[in-house]
Amino acid sequence: MGGGPRSGGTVAHRLIEDHLVEGRMVPGEEIGLRIDQTLTQDATGTLVMQELEALGLDRVRTEVSVQYVDHNLLQADERNAEDHAFLRSAVRRFGIWYSKPGNGVSHPTHMQRFGIPGTTLAGSDSHTCAAGSLGMLAIGVGGLEVALAMAGQPLYLRMPEIWGIRLTGALPEWVSAKDVILEMLRRHGVKGAVNRIVEYHGPGLAGLTAMDRHVIANMGAELGATTSVFPADAAVRDFLRTEGREQDYTDVGAASDARYDLQDEIDLSTLEPLIARPSSPGDVVPVRDVAGERVDQVVLGSSANPGLRDFAIAAAMVEGRQAAPGVSFDVNPTSREILQDLLRTGAVFDLIAAGARLHQAGCLGCIGMGQAPAAGSNSLRTFPRNFPGRSGTEDDAVWLCSPETAAASALTGAITDPRDWAARDGVTYPAMDLPERATVNTAMLEPPLPPHEAAEVELERGPNISALPDLDPLPDSIEAPVLLKAGDHVSTDEISPAGAKALPFRSNIPKLAEFTLTRLDPDYPHRAARLRDAGGHVIVAGENWGQGSSREHAAITPRYLGLRVIIAKSYARIHWQNLANFGVLALEFDDPADYDRITAGDRLRIDGLRATLTPGTPPTLRVRNTTRSEEYAVHHRLSDRQRTAVLAGGTIPALAHGEP
Amino acid sequence: MGGGPRSGGTVAHRLIEDHLVEGRMVPGEEIGLRIDQTLTQDATGTLVMQELEALGLDRVRTEVSVQYVDHNLLQADERNAEDHAFLRSAVRRFGIWYSKPGNGVSHPTHMQRFGIPGTTLAGSDSHTCAAGSLGMLAIGVGGLEVALAMAGQPLYLRMPEIWGIRLTGALPEWVSAKDVILEMLRRHGVKGAVNRIVEYHGPGLAGLTAMDRHVIANMGAELGATTSVFPADAAVRDFLRTEGREQDYTDVGAASDARYDLQDEIDLSTLEPLIARPSSPGDVVPVRDVAGERVDQVVLGSSANPGLRDFAIAAAMVEGRQAAPGVSFDVNPTSREILQDLLRTGAVFDLIAAGARLHQAGCLGCIGMGQAPAAGSNSLRTFPRNFPGRSGTEDDAVWLCSPETAAASALTGAITDPRDWAARDGVTYPAMDLPERATVNTAMLEPPLPPHEAAEVELERGPNISALPDLDPLPDSIEAPVLLKAGDHVSTDEISPAGAKALPFRSNIPKLAEFTLTRLDPDYPHRAARLRDAGGHVIVAGENWGQGSSREHAAITPRYLGLRVIIAKSYARIHWQNLANFGVLALEFDDPADYDRITAGDRLRIDGLRATLTPGTPPTLRVRNTTRSEEYAVHHRLSDRQRTAVLAGGTIPALAHGEP
Repeated sequence: MGGGPRSGGTVAHRLIEDHLVEGRMVPGEEIGLRIDQTLTQDATGTLVMQELEALGLDRVRTEVSVQYVDHNLLQADERNAEDHAFLRSAVRRFGIWYSKPGNGVSHPTHMQRFGIPGTTLAGSDSHTCAAGSLGMLAIGVGGLEVALAMAGQPLYLRMPEIWGIRLTGALPEWVSAKDVILEMLRRHGVKGAVNRIVEYHGPGLAGLTAMDRHVIANMGAELGATTSVFPADAAVRDFLRTEGREQDYTDVGAASDARYDLQDEIDLSTLEPLIARPSSPGDVVPVRDVAGERVDQVVLGSSANPGLRDFAIAAAMVEGRQAAPGVSFDVNPTSREILQDLLRTGAVFDLIAAGARLHQAGCLGCIGMGQAPAAGSNSLRTFPRNFPGRSGTEDDAVWLCSPETAAASALTGAITDPRDWAARDGVTYPAMDLPERATVNTAMLEPPLPPHEAAEVELERGPNISALPDLDPLPDSIEAPVLLKAGDHVSTDEISPAGAKALPFRSNIPKLAEFTLTRLDPDYPHRAARLRDAGGHVIVAGENWGQGSSREHAAITPRYLGLRVIIAKSYARIHWQNLANFGVLALEFDDPADYDRITAGDRLRIDGLRATLTPGTPPTLRVRNTTRSEEYAVHHRLSDRQRTAVLAGGTIPALAHGEP
Repeated sequence: MGGGPRSGGTVAHRLIEDHLVEGRMVPGEEIGLRIDQTLTQDATGTLVMQELEALGLDRVRTEVSVQYVDHNLLQADERNAEDHAFLRSAVRRFGIWYSKPGNGVSHPTHMQRFGIPGTTLAGSDSHTCAAGSLGMLAIGVGGLEVALAMAGQPLYLRMPEIWGIRLTGALPEWVSAKDVILEMLRRHGVKGAVNRIVEYHGPGLAGLTAMDRHVIANMGAELGATTSVFPADAAVRDFLRTEGREQDYTDVGAASDARYDLQDEIDLSTLEPLIARPSSPGDVVPVRDVAGERVDQVVLGSSANPGLRDFAIAAAMVEGRQAAPGVSFDVNPTSREILQDLLRTGAVFDLIAAGARLHQAGCLGCIGMGQAPAAGSNSLRTFPRNFPGRSGTEDDAVWLCSPETAAASALTGAITDPRDWAARDGVTYPAMDLPERATVNTAMLEPPLPPHEAAEVELERGPNISALPDLDPLPDSIEAPVLLKAGDHVSTDEISPAGAKALPFRSNIPKLAEFTLTRLDPDYPHRAARLRDAGGHVIVAGENWGQGSSREHAAITPRYLGLRVIIAKSYARIHWQNLANFGVLALEFDDPADYDRITAGDRLRIDGLRATLTPGTPPTLRVRNTTRSEEYAVHHRLSDRQRTAVLAGGTIPALAHGEP
């Protein structure tokens, strides 16, 4: 499958090349990749397990598949524990690893226990890309894509452009990995890396540990990247040695003459503490620009700052000091292993003594499961995302920053540049003495059952686990009103909220559908349901529709409510795939200016839907606005495989009919 | 006020005598007590703060009043954080201590930082009685009673009988304080100590630490006791020394010839591990009787096993072992101080290494805020209560036991007597090396503001803080249907649920009312609301109506929905006081057999309600069942003070009209 020159010789090219089973490595063309590992979490995993059932799978075909329980750990009622029981029975049935509640967040845990340089990972979580820190090709996709990968199918995606980011220099004191990715977001915004793989290289890498790279790779999702990759080098070897897995190390590097499709450079020594303002990860400014704003809550943790070092620096800063009286200082350890190491070093004691509320290991507030701030109050978090309402509070004001900025702000009660805090208090940058060997403890990771035992396992389906909805084929014509006209960058958190109210229903589509798009229009589910049998409805949207979380609920619930066609200026990658998988036709304006000519309530008529999806047919259509007597030219970007799926009503009915 | 012989000379008598400001110490007569300290928590405290406002209080008159935030820490949405902000502003306004979220559960924290032998404590939490462990007279009452005590009013109650429990012998290995109170519940059930103070004495005391006594005193609430008391002796002095407060020690003992109204004896050396079966704390059996039942969840913590020793014994048992694969092993530290000590001793590390999910310090699952088990699955908890649904799961199966039984069962995955586990595994009873000095850290306790600063503070009233409802005077006649006929031992958890769904609305009576009695009749709030303007409704109940939590919401929300009269066989003490405070007339059958003659839906007519409440009038009435053409003789037990309150519609309108 091609050699160095053809592939460009970057780490990304080499990883793709090694796993290419279909297509050509030409940016924009669909390729199929062999998947070595998969990762699912509980918020998306219950659907994945039902999809495995619908696919009739007996046992997964991957080298390693792991089901993590990290998102919904609140257990506000019985549904949560019942979901856990269902997942545990399903992993036992299908030959999957099970990471128990309390074992930790999928991304750092996977990196610690399973990540192997040179392999591919597909995960039903948008931050799966974090494993790019180990020289893996790790891609967040919808649950059904992961289910298909578990079943041994290739993972299909558009060949992205490879974007080389050359790092030079070394980070100054009080500036850390989070500030690197915030600098990328400051420069390029939340669409900056759409259809790209971000590949970091250059001499600046030498100063970044594997876990620092995890921080940077993780939030590549916020740039819209297909994924991010780092080489597997000495830093990765050190990490695996710390984890007792040096034997899993393989060198993965770029060719000396590697060719990137695009290039940029960051001199690490010029960076300063940065912060993303409410309510977009792309709205980044220097901390000093907003210093002094009162802070009511500070939260450490999440997959965007998961490492021992991230907590240890905060612990060293607060040691012998106290969080400001009005501040809730919350600490979410990211994995049991990291918590055990933090206990060994005394960091937990220092955090608690400084007034921290120590929570169980998991995603927690990062996915809106608890820790909701008061409306309008400022919450500083080391998390990856601050989309509106994601915290669980409608009018939230969530800021994203490094652990250093978070700790300094917790102590002062106001947004504070850690350099200014250190200068004011005469604090020198702390030396952190981190353990050379991690406290490896795999007792909360249950290995797959042997096949003969697995075959005997019955799924424990509680009353809150509904079957997947029936998906009927796409009609040839649609005439329906525009029920919602949305702006740019609407996230899947807004389409299908997580959080403490909605997430318990993640396995119950009819019930979950009642929350669809209510952040934009509280009446949407009700109005959509009324139109469902009268031809359904259409959504019109701006740029980057469906950014953020990979949850396929954001495609399934609108579809369940009668959405068959959406017309947008552009789409986020994972959500666009999910729409195709669940039979929603995603159209794009030929002329984005036509977006402005449509008003909510207009009736649109589109004919020849099925014809345009026949493989080989031009992907173009005309939309008639019968309210305004206008026509708009639109197109789709579906591959032949996806066309077949949308025609059939979705990928599962397509497979059921023997279609590819 | 009187000497030894008249008072009986027990610790309880002496404490009462020292604080008596009204009435005579004759069992059954109303007495008024001076209150030195008060305790409120967040689930009841938001109403208390509104009551202080309604009373027009400028600053509390007690020696110490503390507001804890321990019940609702989940923060599933903004209401929770807004409640915290409201509470913090109110304590600053009224001169109250504030214990921040994360500082811990009120009862152990109060004992550690504020408890003083020989003083009185009124708390708006039914487990306030736990402070009886220090030789205090500590009584759980409704929020309004606490508000009045804060305002310098006496606390009124019926003089209870003093029940001496003589302890002899010493606890065997693997048997601990929890088994002592479970033995009391096994013998006497959930009504066993109604209208009594349980006073522990005798040589067996010597082997019980102050925190062991806390365990026993705490769950005196489950016996229905007015409170429980222990002497202040060497064990109490040791405890205060450990806490750095030896100067707060005073000897409080019974006279050598102390006379108890009733007596019982427990030989501690004969006790064995006990367990309360679902779903009553009174349904106690030996652990061996139910050994082998599969366990899905084990939770350590709560005010019923809060001490360092309770976690340390479990940590020693699980050290180097693993919780069984299917078990969620949850650990809820009870206070920051205890968590810091557990960190120092390494106990936290051992618990985490064994698979524990370590949660923030607070009540958490004990009040149904998270940790809900799957329906029908067995959950073993070291908590005080297992009323139906209190866990947050409708069909729950919660068992109550000691930390020893909990830890052994977590390891085996089945209900296990710790003696049998030890024998099977060849484990000897662990020596626990506990710190001689606690990690005292008061930084999360904010002291009251000085008066001139307090006067400037504005209450931060978020949108979820509703005003108290208007309470109109009692009508002279009522003719209304029996909307609900309830059985025995209905708890306030069933009348006004806590838990993750309802508790966020604790400051919003109209919204909270929608949950009233829905565990018994999902349609009750709706049907009651429809009858509200048509004369309201009546409830008929069996024994011990309103046992459990002190929350006054269980009186306010039915009243809000139109309940003016209830007829029961008997009432739990705190709820009965709350009913009077909020203008609901609590009647009792002269002949309990009449209970059986009434059917839900019957219309009852009662005339002369106001006349029977006029001070000096006989407390008797006749109830006419117009559906069945029958009459029943009933009576009330209200004091003159309470009669005036019920006539006026409640204590607040009575005070507003200048009535006592």
